[in-house]
Amino acid sequence: MVTVPSAPRAASAGDLLQLLRDGEPRTKAEIAALTGLSRSTVAARIDALLASGFAMPAGEAASSGGRRPSRVAFSPLSRLVVGIDLGATHGVVALSDLAGTILAESAARLRITDGPESVLDWAVGETLELLADVGRDADDVLGVGIGVPGPVEHDTGRPVNPPIMPGWDRFDIPAFVRRRLPVTVLVDNDVNVLALGEQAMFWPDADDLVFVKVSTGIGAGVIMGGRLQRGARGSAGDLGHVRVPVTDGAHSPDLEAVASGPAIAASLDGSTSEDVIAAVRGGDARAAEAVRQAGRDVGEVLAGVVNLLNPSVIVIGGSITRAGEHLIAGVREVVYRRSIPLATQDLTIAPSRGGESAGALGAAIMAIDATLDAESVDAIVNGRF
Amino acid sequence: MVTVPSAPRAASAGDLLQLLRDGEPRTKAEIAALTGLSRSTVAARIDALLASGFAMPAGEAASSGGRRPSRVAFSPLSRLVVGIDLGATHGVVALSDLAGTILAESAARLRITDGPESVLDWAVGETLELLADVGRDADDVLGVGIGVPGPVEHDTGRPVNPPIMPGWDRFDIPAFVRRRLPVTVLVDNDVNVLALGEQAMFWPDADDLVFVKVSTGIGAGVIMGGRLQRGARGSAGDLGHVRVPVTDGAHSPDLEAVASGPAIAASLDGSTSEDVIAAVRGGDARAAEAVRQAGRDVGEVLAGVVNLLNPSVIVIGGSITRAGEHLIAGVREVVYRRSIPLATQDLTIAPSRGGESAGALGAAIMAIDATLDAESVDAIVNGRF
Repeated sequence: MVTVPSAPRAASAGDLLQLLRDGEPRTKAEIAALTGLSRSTVAARIDALLASGFAMPAGEAASSGGRRPSRVAFSPLSRLVVGIDLGATHGVVALSDLAGTILAESAARLRITDGPESVLDWAVGETLELLADVGRDADDVLGVGIGVPGPVEHDTGRPVNPPIMPGWDRFDIPAFVRRRLPVTVLVDNDVNVLALGEQAMFWPDADDLVFVKVSTGIGAGVIMGGRLQRGARGSAGDLGHVRVPVTDGAHSPDLEAVASGPAIAASLDGSTSEDVIAAVRGGDARAAEAVRQAGRDVGEVLAGVVNLLNPSVIVIGGSITRAGEHLIAGVREVVYRRSIPLATQDLTIAPSRGGESAGALGAAIMAIDATLDAESVDAIVNGRF
Repeated sequence: MVTVPSAPRAASAGDLLQLLRDGEPRTKAEIAALTGLSRSTVAARIDALLASGFAMPAGEAASSGGRRPSRVAFSPLSRLVVGIDLGATHGVVALSDLAGTILAESAARLRITDGPESVLDWAVGETLELLADVGRDADDVLGVGIGVPGPVEHDTGRPVNPPIMPGWDRFDIPAFVRRRLPVTVLVDNDVNVLALGEQAMFWPDADDLVFVKVSTGIGAGVIMGGRLQRGARGSAGDLGHVRVPVTDGAHSPDLEAVASGPAIAASLDGSTSEDVIAAVRGGDARAAEAVRQAGRDVGEVLAGVVNLLNPSVIVIGGSITRAGEHLIAGVREVVYRRSIPLATQDLTIAPSRGGESAGALGAAIMAIDATLDAESVDAIVNGRF
């Protein structure tokens, strides 16, 4: 289909807010000149944005004579969003302004296996406490983004057969959260929100980025053409069930069966990712080599991903990276050898640096993207005024 | 990075043309209401589009009294684009209007190995003849899209180490074509233009589509989120060098080494794809099974692609499909068994139906997308008037 790009549409208040979201203060005359809208239309829309708080006065511009024209600017603090990142054994709740700046954050150890009511009650409770800490209240919240450690039907926000989340299957997370925070709630798997967070923090110019999490499971967040790609049914990124090409042996295994934390642990007669990390940190050479081999296995699969998608950045995260450089060294060893030269020429393979904050930030960004578009802003502006 | 969507910009004539590209006739008053632009701005911009030919008068609207307001509409025939699809042994040249409707087409057997001057001279010559046939001339051409059977640096339009195109390495295709057709010239590999063409013809609603060509080589065109994804350096889609997971055997081969036309032929003591097709058509059961096994090998790699990208449609094309259903049967057999259920739930695996026209249409669409955006239209509108 021929792509029809960027058709101008009725320039609503919400549309003008998009223009202001770059943070630049502008006069109404400048906005009229930029958009071709009439002065009276611009004045009415900007007044609505000022009344709703999305825009704020931002001083005066120089005048060529007469009264100085006043400037308006985006007000990122006019509303807040909440980013929640839930892992198997941790949770992070972050308050963010509308520009993706984290204002307050709270982290705790928890067990996802305690089930949705208990875990989400904690997360909502933390949200309300953080709001109180920064002197805001629940009415200021525009949306909530949540990352969970399992597959999610993104349209409905329900986990689907999540292997390590007993009690969460098909649980209506948005409905539960909305009982206490009646706003837009978006849910995605933790790897996708990590990809969004890492990109925002460290790779804002990378349009084609693959984030790989190697932990209890193995998954990827795929950003292509500047956008997170979830695929037709939202299941994109399932790297753990991709089979590993082999050089010797009789059967290509699923990646997760050889390179996940439990798989590495099993090869060392341990049982968890923590056992592996402890062994490597304790100087166990056999454990270090097992992690490096897991990295090679991940690299065998990523070599195919690189040939298929030609990303500029691959970020390796997840708990196994806490065992040091062995994992990423194994990945690099294989990807640079196996992928075609044109695809690896400018390829960076980097460790995740965002830590636990990246997931919560990514979840907040998901909420901003979903609630600050022109239509959503118009609904608020028109509903209230 | 927080995505800032659809900021309104100076609504130029080119912007208003995007609005009209849906084909709907509109009055100036309707356009003013739709865009929020002043009547005088709309009048000036529409006059410019009428003068440049991109828009045309389209009758009168009903009136509530007084003079009937006149309508304007997009004029897809005001300019033309050229789509050229070059294969190893064939070439297709198509003239298309600005809505992607093919007006005239010419196909020929040729040898890509004759080198760029000879092949491109033929293509430009055919273009000029087709233009004469439809009573237009070279000044009406806005852009040329070209697909070639090898890797291309999309930004410069130069083939890069193309294995079956001796004499074409680093050849400046756009500069050569522009000597006789001084317009925008875009070059991409044949699989990407086939993906664009097949999507336009048969799958306009599929935002996530992978086109796979199994022929002398094996490659893919990856459409995700509604857009062709070329990756960071334009090399995305290199499926032929992805290794095949194996169930028995000591070494995972590259897909191309086992499933391309020459590889299948070699397993049958033949030498070309044509040998394979002839054998299968002649009822050779061993040849049919070899093609089916190639399909399984393609399926093994595609199972990983499905887990990673979760497309809604996979289209299988290329010369080997001319050997009947065996190839796609092998692909389906493995993909539905190996990929995760959520990813295959609504997955269609279909044979290519566009034939040789799809590539030329896809090349034309690439040219339209690159030359009919607001900025390019404005350059023409402002340059001439």
